[in-house]
Amino acid sequence: MSNFMQYAIQLAQMVEGQTGVNPPVGSVVVNDGRIVGLGAHLMQGDKHAEVQALDMAQDKAKGGTIYISLEPCTHYGSTPPCVNKIIEFGLSKVIYAVKDTTLPSEGNAILQKAGIEVEYQHSTEAAQLYEDFFKAKNNKVPEITVKVSTTLDGKQATDNGQSQWITNPEVKQDVYRLRHTHDAVLTGYGTVEADNPRYTTCIQDGKHPTRIILSRKGDIDFSKQIFHDNLSEIWIYTEHESLTSPNEHIKIIHLADCKLDNILTDIYERGVGKLLIEAGPRVTSAFLQSKYLDQLIIYYAPKIIGGRGIHQFYQTDHVIDLDQATQFEIISTELINQNIKMIMRKK
Amino acid sequence: MSNFMQYAIQLAQMVEGQTGVNPPVGSVVVNDGRIVGLGAHLMQGDKHAEVQALDMAQDKAKGGTIYISLEPCTHYGSTPPCVNKIIEFGLSKVIYAVKDTTLPSEGNAILQKAGIEVEYQHSTEAAQLYEDFFKAKNNKVPEITVKVSTTLDGKQATDNGQSQWITNPEVKQDVYRLRHTHDAVLTGYGTVEADNPRYTTCIQDGKHPTRIILSRKGDIDFSKQIFHDNLSEIWIYTEHESLTSPNEHIKIIHLADCKLDNILTDIYERGVGKLLIEAGPRVTSAFLQSKYLDQLIIYYAPKIIGGRGIHQFYQTDHVIDLDQATQFEIISTELINQNIKMIMRKK
Repeated sequence: MSNFMQYAIQLAQMVEGQTGVNPPVGSVVVNDGRIVGLGAHLMQGDKHAEVQALDMAQDKAKGGTIYISLEPCTHYGSTPPCVNKIIEFGLSKVIYAVKDTTLPSEGNAILQKAGIEVEYQHSTEAAQLYEDFFKAKNNKVPEITVKVSTTLDGKQATDNGQSQWITNPEVKQDVYRLRHTHDAVLTGYGTVEADNPRYTTCIQDGKHPTRIILSRKGDIDFSKQIFHDNLSEIWIYTEHESLTSPNEHIKIIHLADCKLDNILTDIYERGVGKLLIEAGPRVTSAFLQSKYLDQLIIYYAPKIIGGRGIHQFYQTDHVIDLDQATQFEIISTELINQNIKMIMRKK
Repeated sequence: MSNFMQYAIQLAQMVEGQTGVNPPVGSVVVNDGRIVGLGAHLMQGDKHAEVQALDMAQDKAKGGTIYISLEPCTHYGSTPPCVNKIIEFGLSKVIYAVKDTTLPSEGNAILQKAGIEVEYQHSTEAAQLYEDFFKAKNNKVPEITVKVSTTLDGKQATDNGQSQWITNPEVKQDVYRLRHTHDAVLTGYGTVEADNPRYTTCIQDGKHPTRIILSRKGDIDFSKQIFHDNLSEIWIYTEHESLTSPNEHIKIIHLADCKLDNILTDIYERGVGKLLIEAGPRVTSAFLQSKYLDQLIIYYAPKIIGGRGIHQFYQTDHVIDLDQATQFEIISTELINQNIKMIMRKK
C-alpha cells in the first residue's frame, strides 16, 4: 500500500474549517511513481482540490493516477464538474476514499466510459472527516460541536457565577484552535453579559470565527467587549423587531420564532458549515438535547466545586429515564497539562 | 501556536525521495486566517515549493504569510531565487523552520530590506528532515541508509547461504516503501548472483529506484532476473574496462579505482540524493564502516540460526576495541507482525 491516499487525506485535513458548507477535500496526482500535483479545496467558490492538483501537474498528469479524499463531483456548481477535468487531462485512473452520498452517483460511469479506471479505497479516517458533512448537507444545518469547560462535578461556574478560569491556559490555546477550525462560534447573550468574552482566536495567522449571539429579547448592551472589534462579523438572532445594529460588522437577524431549528437553518444558508457552541448551561443544554448535535468536546479541570449546582452544564426541564440518557462514543482523550480533553460523538 | 508550519513540513514529507539531490520542501501561504496556497518541490529542476504555493495563491498572497519548511533560496540555480518571488507577490511575512546552512545567508537581509518580516520557527522534525541533506550536500555524496534483514543472532543467511525468507511478508512491504523513498538501491554483484533479486517496488503507483550494482571484476551474468525488466535504470560500477551493456537501460560505469568514496561521489553527481544499501555482508560491512553512513534500519526476525556465522551482517578485517565500536541512537522501534524494525542513526 502506498501513502498517496494518506497524503490526499492530510491535505483535506489542512483545510478543515475553511471551506464553509463545502467539504474539505485533498488531492494528489501521481505519475511514474512521483507526485506531480497537489491540491486542496481552499474556499467555497474556489477551485476544487482535483482542479488545483491538475493545474499544478499540467501535462505531467497525462496517463497518471489521481488520488482524492472524496469522490469527484459530476455537477455544475460554482465550478464545472471535476470528472470533466479529469477526462480532459488524460488521467488513466481515479482513486477515492469516500463516496459522496449527496451527489447523483453516475460519476464512475462517466469516467469508465471515458476509459478511466476507478478504484474505491476505503479509509476510516476520511469517512469520519465527511460523516458530519453529509449529515449536515442533508439536513441543511451546520455540523455542530458543543464545547464545555467544566469541573469534575459537571459545573461551568460556582453558584455565584464565578467561572474564570476553571481550565488552564493551555486549554485556552486549544480552544483557539477549535475556533480557527469552525466557521462560527455560537453563544447566548447571557454569557456575553456575564463573562464579557470575545470569541476570537489568538493562534498565529488564525481565522476568527463569525460570532453568533442568541438573544430572543434583544436587550443588548453594545458596550460589551465583543462588539469593540471587527475581526469577524457578529450575527445577533432575535425576535425583537426593532433592534438595530450600531455597526456595519454587526448583523441583526430577526426571526419570528427564535427556535433552534429555525436558527440553524438560517445559519447554514448563510454559509456556515461548521458551528462551535461555547455557551452557558441554558444554550449548551439546548444543543446537547438537539438531534443535530454531532460532537461533544469536554475539558475537565481536576477540581470539584459543589454548591447547589446552578451552573451545571447539562440541565433539562424533565426527568430523563436512565435508558433514555444520551450516549456518547469516546473518540479520544488527551491530557493537556493536568486538564483532560475528551472528544466524543453522539451515538 | 497554529498548525501551518506543521502542514508545510507534512508537504515536505510527502515528496521525500523524489527530489534527487534537492531537499524536500513544503510551503503554505496563509492570508486572513485561511490557507490560500499549498506547494511542494516535486522534482529536481521543477519549481520550488514557495513558487508552487504562490502560483496557487495568486493575488490572494498579497499581505499574507508564507510558511516554508526550509529557508527560501537566494540564488539563481535551475530556477530564480525564491526570495524575489516572495517580494514580487507582496507577502508581509516569511516563516521558516530550518536555516539552510548550504546557502549564502543574506536571505533574511534581502527580505527585511523589502519590508518583509522574517521569523525563524524551529522544528525538530524539520531539522531531522534536512540534517542528512546538509551533510550530503557538503560532502557531495548521497544520504546513506543501510537496511539489514537479520536473525536475532546477526546473520543474513545460514552458512549454506539460505536467506529467503528470514523476515516476513509485511517486512517485504515495508522495504518496498523504503525503495520508493530512495532514489537508488545499491548492492554487490554477489547478492545478485546468490539471491537473484529485482530491487523494484510493488506499492501502488510506487517509484522504482535506480539499481546500482558493484562488481569490481565485472564478471556479470546478464541472464539474472534483475536485468530482465527496464522499470528503472541499472548502473554497474566496475574496473573491468571492456565490459559493455547488453541493453540501453543498463549503464556500465568504469572507474579506475572502485573504492567507496569514488563510487559515492559519482553516484551523487548523477543526481542520486538518497541511497539505500540492500546488500550482503561484504558490502553492508563496508558501508557500516563508512564515515558517510547516516541511518541504519534493521529488521529482526525472532529466530536464531547459529552455524559458523559466515553471513553475519557485520564483519571487519581487524579487531575493533570495544570503546571504538560504532554507536547508534535508536530513533524508533516498531513491531511489524512479530518482526521488529529499528531505525537508528549513527552517533
